[in-house]
Order: sequence, then C-alpha cells, then structure tokens
Amino acid sequence: MGQNGRIRNAALLAKVTSAEHAASLIASGSTVGMSGFTGSGYPKAVPLALARRIEAARERGTPFRVCVWTGASTGPELDGALARADGISLRLPYNSDPVARERINRGEMDYADLHLSQVAPMAWQGFLGELDTAVIEISGIRPDGSLVPSSSVGNNKTWLDRARQVILEVNRWQSAALEGMHDIYYGTALPPHRVPIPLLRPEDRIGEPTFRCDPDKIVAIVETDSPDRNLPFAAPDDVARSIAGHLLEFLRHEVARGRLPDSLLPIQSGVGNVANAVLSGLLHGPFEGLTAYTEVIQDGMLDLLAAGKLRVASATAFSLSPAAATRLNAEMALFRDRMILRPQEISNHPEVVRRLGCIAMNGLIEADIYGNVNSTHVMGSRIQNGIGGSGDFARNAFLSIFLTPSTAKGGTISAIVPQVSHVDHIAQDVHVLVTEQGLADLRGLSPKQRADLILARCAHPDYRPLLEDYYARARRGAYGLHAPSLPGEALSWHQRFMEQGSMRPAGNRS
Amino acid sequence: MGQNGRIRNAALLAKVTSAEHAASLIASGSTVGMSGFTGSGYPKAVPLALARRIEAARERGTPFRVCVWTGASTGPELDGALARADGISLRLPYNSDPVARERINRGEMDYADLHLSQVAPMAWQGFLGELDTAVIEISGIRPDGSLVPSSSVGNNKTWLDRARQVILEVNRWQSAALEGMHDIYYGTALPPHRVPIPLLRPEDRIGEPTFRCDPDKIVAIVETDSPDRNLPFAAPDDVARSIAGHLLEFLRHEVARGRLPDSLLPIQSGVGNVANAVLSGLLHGPFEGLTAYTEVIQDGMLDLLAAGKLRVASATAFSLSPAAATRLNAEMALFRDRMILRPQEISNHPEVVRRLGCIAMNGLIEADIYGNVNSTHVMGSRIQNGIGGSGDFARNAFLSIFLTPSTAKGGTISAIVPQVSHVDHIAQDVHVLVTEQGLADLRGLSPKQRADLILARCAHPDYRPLLEDYYARARRGAYGLHAPSLPGEALSWHQRFMEQGSMRPAGNRS
Repeated sequence: MGQNGRIRNAALLAKVTSAEHAASLIASGSTVGMSGFTGSGYPKAVPLALARRIEAARERGTPFRVCVWTGASTGPELDGALARADGISLRLPYNSDPVARERINRGEMDYADLHLSQVAPMAWQGFLGELDTAVIEISGIRPDGSLVPSSSVGNNKTWLDRARQVILEVNRWQSAALEGMHDIYYGTALPPHRVPIPLLRPEDRIGEPTFRCDPDKIVAIVETDSPDRNLPFAAPDDVARSIAGHLLEFLRHEVARGRLPDSLLPIQSGVGNVANAVLSGLLHGPFEGLTAYTEVIQDGMLDLLAAGKLRVASATAFSLSPAAATRLNAEMALFRDRMILRPQEISNHPEVVRRLGCIAMNGLIEADIYGNVNSTHVMGSRIQNGIGGSGDFARNAFLSIFLTPSTAKGGTISAIVPQVSHVDHIAQDVHVLVTEQGLADLRGLSPKQRADLILARCAHPDYRPLLEDYYARARRGAYGLHAPSLPGEALSWHQRFMEQGSMRPAGNRS
Repeated sequence: MGQNGRIRNAALLAKVTSAEHAASLIASGSTVGMSGFTGSGYPKAVPLALARRIEAARERGTPFRVCVWTGASTGPELDGALARADGISLRLPYNSDPVARERINRGEMDYADLHLSQVAPMAWQGFLGELDTAVIEISGIRPDGSLVPSSSVGNNKTWLDRARQVILEVNRWQSAALEGMHDIYYGTALPPHRVPIPLLRPEDRIGEPTFRCDPDKIVAIVETDSPDRNLPFAAPDDVARSIAGHLLEFLRHEVARGRLPDSLLPIQSGVGNVANAVLSGLLHGPFEGLTAYTEVIQDGMLDLLAAGKLRVASATAFSLSPAAATRLNAEMALFRDRMILRPQEISNHPEVVRRLGCIAMNGLIEADIYGNVNSTHVMGSRIQNGIGGSGDFARNAFLSIFLTPSTAKGGTISAIVPQVSHVDHIAQDVHVLVTEQGLADLRGLSPKQRADLILARCAHPDYRPLLEDYYARARRGAYGLHAPSLPGEALSWHQRFMEQGSMRPAGNRS
C-alpha cells in the first residue's frame, strides 16, 4: 500500500485499498461522477472492477446499473467496460466509446448530450439529482491533503464538491511534473451570487493548482500505473491539407484587412486529421505569438509550443498520441509553464469565450445549403459522439469556422445536403464553412446569399448539380422564399442513403 | 426651427432642418443604421421622406435602395414605408413589419436574421461593411451636446459611433422625464481588449445616461411630435391563462424544492398574449421582490412595477399599448427610478444573462418530439419575424422556458410535430416546454425521455395519437435509436399542410 510514492498525506495513505473494494462501495441505482475528458485522466481500475461486479450481479440474476457522469469522453476501461456489462442506465454529458455508442443507438442506454460548459452548473442547480460517488483520477496527494489533478480537469472539482463519497485513483503513470500546471477556479456560484469570471487573457491564472476535498468524504484510494487512452495521431491527408490551406489563406486575408490581429485571437480547435492539418499549417505559417483557449491540447499544439509559435495553451485536458504523450511526460518541465488545464466550466465558459474572441474551429457531419450544421446525428437519429463544447465555442466565437471534407464514406455521403437531418449549430452560429473545395464566408448574409456561396465554394462537384437542382426548384415552389425549402424532399437524400447506401440517385452513380 | 424646446445646444439647434432635406443626404446604395426596437424609438419622419425620395427616383427610372440596420423591429413609417417603396436591399437584424415580411418571402428583399446581442460587435468587427448614415430618434439634446435617448436604446450607441454622418430626430412626444433612466455602457471593445461587463444585478448602472456624439458628424436634425407604434394590448384568453397557470405552478414547485430563490431570478419575457398572461399571473402570485432583465418592458411589467411586485426592470426598449404608453408618459417620474434601458448588446449579453441566471420565457412556432424549437420559419421557409434575442437568452438562461398553444390556425397546425422544419433552439437549450395541455420539464433527459414527456404533457389530444404512431414506428425502424426519426416522413406534416391546408390526414378531420 502506498507504493507509488504519490500520496504524501499519512491519513489518506491509510485509505489505500484495492479497486475491487472501492467498486464494492458503489451501489446499484446510484449516480457516479467520474473523471475523464477526451480519453485523458479517467479512472482506469475502479470502473473495470465495477464492470466485473455488475457482470457478477447479472449472473446472479440481480440487475445492476448506474448513472455515469463525466467530463467528456473516457477510455475503454470506463465507458467500454461499463457499456459492455450493460451497467449504465443514463450517461452524460458526452460519449465517443464505440461499445457505448452501439448500446445507445440500439436504444438500450439513455444518453443526455449536453453543452460541456453547462454540466457543472447543472449539477449545482440540482435537477440532475444527487451525486452519490465521485471516482476521480489524480496524479498525487500533497501533504496538506489537496489533490494534484491528472491529465484532465473536466468536472472533477464539481464532482468532488457534490459527491457524498469520493474514490480516488492515484496514477503514477501521469508525470509528477503536472503539479502546478492546473488552475482550479473556486469562484463559481449559483445565481444570484455569480460574479464576473476574472479571466482576461488565455494565460491568466485565476485559481489554485490543486483540488480541495473533504478528507472525511474519501472512502477509498486506489493506486494505478496505467496510460491514458492516447489515440494515434491522425495524419493529415490531401483533403485535410486542402481544407487547412483554404482556412489559412482566409486568416491571412482577415489580418490583411485589419479584421484580426497579427497574432490572431485565441484558437479553439477540435481533434482529428483536419484539425491536425490546420495546426500543422499554423506551424509553417506567418502568424507568431499565437494563443489557444480550447478544450484539449493535442499533438499539433505541442509542436506549436515547442516551435515558439504558440505562446500559451489553455484547455481542460490533453488529447495526445502515444508518442506525444511520451514526449510530454519526458519534457513536462519545458512545456508546463506554457500550458494551463482548467475546469471545463471555465475552459468552455461562454463569458470567457466571447470576451477573448476565440477563433473556433470545429468539424461536422453535414451542413445544409443555408449553413445549418449537424455535428452529432448520422441520418438524423444515430448519435455519433455529442455536441461537446462546440456549442459553447461556436455561439460565442469571434469567428466560428466549421471544417469538413465535402463527402464521406467513399463519396456515398455528401457533407452538403438540402437540409440537415438534425441541427446542432444554427446558421447564425456558422460564420465560415470550409471543405477541400473551398471556403464560404457567410457572415452577415441572407439565407439565399449563403446558399449561393456554399453551393459554389463548398459542395463536391458530384453533388453540386443535384443541390443546384433542388435549390432552383425550391426557389420556385417553396412556401416562402426567404429560405426556400421543399419539406417533401428536403430529407430525401438521407432516406436514399438509408435505403440504397448512397445519397446519389441510382442513375447518377459512377 | 427649434420649436419643440428639446434642443438645448445652440450649435446643434442651428442644424434643425426638414425631413426632406435630411433624407436628401442619404445616397442610393448606402447603408443606414436606424434606431428602433419593438416599435419604440424609431425615426418617424426621415424614413418617410426617404421613401418618397425613393419612389420619385423610381418614377424617373433610377433605382434607389439602401441597406437598413436597426435595433430590432420598427414601425410602419420606417420598415413599412421603405419596403412599400421597394427601397431596401438588405435588412438586418430583425423585422416584424408585414409589408417587409411579404417582400422578404416573395424573394424581393434580402434579410439577415441575427442574434440581437451580436449586431453591435459585428458592426465593429467590420465584415458588415461601412455604416454611412445613422438616423436616430432621441428625446432631447442637452446643453453639452450629449443626446438623451428615446423609448428604445437598441444599437444607437454603435450607429452613432460608427456612422460617417448622423441625422437626428428629436421627438417631443417622448416624455421629457425619460432623461436619466438610460444606462449607456461605453466599455465594450473588440478582442483582445474586452474586459468583464461589470453588471452584477439587474439594477446596476454601469454607464452614462446619454449618448456621446461628435457634433461635426451631425448633418441634420429634424423635430417630430409623433407617437411610437404602440401595439394594442393582447389580452390573455383561456389558452394563454392555462399556459401561464402551468408555468406558475412549476415555478412555485421549483421554489419549494429550493431550486429557485423566493423572489425567483431575473425574468426575461417575450411579448404577446401568453407573455401577458404570465405577467398577469405573477401579479396575483406569491412571488415578491421580482426583477426583470429582458429586452422589452411591456404593459404587464408596468402593472407589476406599480404593484410593487417587480422591484426593477432592465431592458433595451418599451413595448406598450397606447393606454400603457399614455400612463407611462404621465407617470414617468414614478416609474423612472425602477426602470433602466440599455444598449441591446448589454440587455442581451450572454455573459450577463448567464451571470444573472435569467428565467427566459419565449414563444415559438413549433417544437418537435425531442424538444427542438422553430421560432422563425413557417413551414421551414417562410420567415415570420426573426430569432431576435431568444438565442441570447435561451442558451444562457438558468431556466429556458418555451410557451405556446398546442395548435394554431384553428387546429389545422400542431405546434408539436415529428420534426421541426427549421431549428432556432436546439433541444439542449429548451429546458421546459409548456402548452395549455401541460408542462414538460426536459432538463437532464435523454431524447426518448424528452419525447415521452412532450407527447404526454404538451401535445394536443387531436394530434397526440398521430405523434405516438410516428414515434412508435420510428422506434422500430430508425437508422439509430438514440433519437429515432424517419427522414422520409419527418416533414410530411408540413408538406400536408402546404398541399391540403391542414396537418391532419384527410380521414382524420372533424
């Protein structure tokens, strides 16, 4: 017990126990708030033990399910294991685990997909119900009992504050040099007691480096030595590089017009190969003194930091490839002073995002001819991941940019459709749309002006004539000509894909 | 000249001229920023003169059109006259004028429907283009040249700051006692220079009572004595009273559960007979010491202020019936210290709305079974008014409530549909849905949990079986069962209404 040397408080050292014992303290029907954000900093032992307990209970004929709250996505040892055991009744606020996704889309598991900035305030507001247990990965415990966060902060502060009992996982795989790089703000409150968030620049520190936790609530501490999920780096392909090229040209243009400072404004970037292409483009681009105010720090941001292009990166979690995670852990001392991890209610806070004037860059599943964006529901009903923080950033950004290849699934799906089958981002919140075909600057335009640009600049040539045909007929026959649409046909592309495996009409497939 | 006694600066008094002369200073193809918000405080003489000039030009065969920016809706002397003359090329950010609406829906006029909080920042950001002329109604000019605002503030500060030239209308119909009740905040900036908005309570004054304006930019001053549009009071009917009853019961319940303070939280309320029923319910309800942080002060709020139930009301404009306007003008000294009119970038500021924790109450055109809301587009394509400030409030509210009768147009339209034909408010931003049938508290629920509640509580009995039938089939046959939908049928109710004049199937009409 206490073998990993990270627990520097004697009273808490005495609470070290096994994952099995810790999991035995979680009751069926209870609500568990876990750590974890984009596969970083999630508990890796207790959820697995809980899944085994759930499976054993089921074999005995006793149903056992819990509500699971997290920061955002976790790893296979948490969502994967619990979903495989059919142990989750309601999951919130985000999921990207394939096993859990399949359960959700088979209708076997409830999932509440929430704005990530709003989860902590909602937990305080009370309508989500009581939080019974917090299961939080940390990287160490200081002599005074304060907790050193791990590779994500997420909603951990709130779970520790709200939970009736707390289970900690102390993971020595996490770099000891993480200590001091977090900024845990303790100034949030419920209205009418809210005050301004005193953050004026991405590098501002407004809180404390550790979590507070009432030691009497800590019922178990489990020691681990396990890596974060660390997805492999998605290398940019030609399509991603084209998208990034259009975007970087636009940013240069905005700077030249005096509409953006030379060092741009704080960037928010999603993950994936398009985001990596954009970050790589910034690495070789003309902009100096960049900042990031975003959810996650990914490989490309480490490169930008190392090259001195990025001055500071503020986020709530890491999302790194195995190679980048190894590099970061080895060189943490170098990076630490230029990175800050905060609670997600602060990293994504609308007040701060709007004040800083973030340049938000997010992906999508489909956009329609008027610029409404679907980020979550394939064919309108099948959840992919969730809205995450994209709504927090897109609604409040100085520039809200959505990036996507113009087709998917070998060309059988057009990313530009007559009408999106689900809406996450209304046209007002979509300032710029970019595909490998080109870029549409939609700011200040009427719906038909937006449609003209999106068709001309963003649609794939294979689908452009079909979109033009629909749009021309809509302009003749619609109920109103403000944003002409044909309800009887608007979602027919999705119906065709579901029936025939392609959005292209049968006579139009090469 | 200078006959109305409201111009107390000699140099500016010399600029008094006719509306015709003032209108002659506005060039075709230029952009004009006008005052006006919900039919209050809009210029009443110059736009009429401009419309006559446009018509004369057209008779000479010379096209003449301008871009028109305002706060929000105006009156027939502005939008109506200019639209009738076909004098508007692009209108933003909101319209409710029937003549302009018809032009927009015939495809003859472009309209950019924007979040009202974002218009002033966008104008500063530059992509909307230059602002050539500001035409602003004020209620007086002080000896130092500062301008006393009128019955709305809207974007006037920004138009006065940004415009190349300024035309003022000084309207003596507006009460002289308006002076001192406005709060014009001059602390906004473009990023990276933004700082927290220092507003912590609805009653906080953070600015100045008057507009600043470079006197050299003022090219004409026109004296008027004309009333605001002042729509008649829409008296609550039984349906509206039922909706209000459900809502008030819910608020009492939230207070009893400790989830709302006894005095509630600052209320935001739309206009119309449902809103009036809610305000009337509050007048006779148990809550004391209420506050309002909202866009407009309507009749019901005057009653609440007079009764001492409402402690303070902050807004950007009045929206009063003729009787209430007369009452307010007569008793302004009584009301003035309990009302504040601010720029709409502050009245609707996401930072402030979230900090205060507003209770947002807005109407809608239709909601779907998952709680997505369409506030703007009839049958998906025909614009009604615009999103206005509903997005500013709903996304950031402590409680976001949408209220609607369950049917419209004599029962031929269901307000609850399988899928909304346009989305303004995504399900995440719709916490509570209320019809005369009942109330659905949707907070923290999964899509199917939301659908169960909406069908049971909100749908009209005539449409409920049809919705249940659709939903049951979707749960069997959808592409994914997270939020089951049938794209081939999801918008068929709208198609049926367009073809047959009713959303009810032909065999199902009583």
